[in-house]
Amino acid sequence: MPGVAHTRRPGAPSAGIPTGFFDLAHTQRAHRAFGADPVPDEVVARILAAAVCAPSAENAQPWEFVVVRDVRLREAIGELTARVWTSGAREAVAGTLSPTLLADVDAGARGGVANAPVLVVVCAHLRRCRPDTVGSSIFPAVQNILLGAAASGLGAALTTLPTVADGPLSELLGLPAEVRPVAVVPLGHPARPLGPPRRDPFEHHTHRDRYGTPW
Amino acid sequence: MPGVAHTRRPGAPSAGIPTGFFDLAHTQRAHRAFGADPVPDEVVARILAAAVCAPSAENAQPWEFVVVRDVRLREAIGELTARVWTSGAREAVAGTLSPTLLADVDAGARGGVANAPVLVVVCAHLRRCRPDTVGSSIFPAVQNILLGAAASGLGAALTTLPTVADGPLSELLGLPAEVRPVAVVPLGHPARPLGPPRRDPFEHHTHRDRYGTPW
Repeated sequence: MPGVAHTRRPGAPSAGIPTGFFDLAHTQRAHRAFGADPVPDEVVARILAAAVCAPSAENAQPWEFVVVRDVRLREAIGELTARVWTSGAREAVAGTLSPTLLADVDAGARGGVANAPVLVVVCAHLRRCRPDTVGSSIFPAVQNILLGAAASGLGAALTTLPTVADGPLSELLGLPAEVRPVAVVPLGHPARPLGPPRRDPFEHHTHRDRYGTPW
Repeated sequence: MPGVAHTRRPGAPSAGIPTGFFDLAHTQRAHRAFGADPVPDEVVARILAAAVCAPSAENAQPWEFVVVRDVRLREAIGELTARVWTSGAREAVAGTLSPTLLADVDAGARGGVANAPVLVVVCAHLRRCRPDTVGSSIFPAVQNILLGAAASGLGAALTTLPTVADGPLSELLGLPAEVRPVAVVPLGHPARPLGPPRRDPFEHHTHRDRYGTPW
């Protein structure tokens, strides 16, 4: 994309950040390795204020966010993530991921993600939505967090590994039974710049009027 | 928000559109009434190209998009939506929605949504993802469609009513058994401008380190 610098210098959140939505969307990547630079509360607040602008079924807004900065808690979430990853999840996906993506997820699950200065645990309050609307009511808000991070010069990723075994995560965070963790989003300054996302062109998966009619 | 015009003139997609992500997020609303102005294919293409930049579990990109312009198909989807709405869905949510939102959804379900010149039916290809990752793999892309529409001066909405009875919708669009419709997103020029979204402040639903600790 002309005019958009993909290189982001850690600690310089205003350098090379695309301002328009379309440029921003085309630079969003899953970051799983972070530098030590801090992420101020004001930046987290701006991102969460954008998150709650996302739509939800019946405008129920069933989200709850736990912003984890405590280093022991982050380490514990990291250990939980590594445990889920190495005790089954890795083998389950090893055959389908590209070697590059597998190595990246591997390093992230073994400590990279939990090393971010902030982990946002996104939860669904099950008294404010039905189980079948959790996905449509929570993941648009998660996407706003990811885009808000990118717009702030931060790296982020949509991870769900630590929520797979949701008992231990709920215990760590003191979640009531009716609050279910759905995603863990690390926020931090990217350890290294990443290029544009690798995707099939949309035309390969778009149909006109009826399935199978080329777009 | 200073500097952001909430009024969008139909047919003038570049008028008063916020360019930065945060301003854009704060103007996104569910539009369920549309004017007759056309939505060019180039605009739909740009929105879908942004949609596929969204993350998905294992980067599986399990989305399939059916772009419905055919007026008979849109009418049939509209009739299906109205049928689901009036035969149970309305009563189920009437007690929880605000009167304003109920009236808005009511008008949308009874024809407003299907009146948009374009309906994007977003589907999940179940051979490219597990059922438990449909939500995390599809709704971030849907949110990019909604934001991309807003960034193009268009109105859009995340609707799921016509997918509830997914048999008839699949038949209308000729979807194979392994392709499940997940959302229907109308794209069109807003019939009227809408103000900022009505949301609880994020602080009411944000915790620090452990659930219940004020942010």
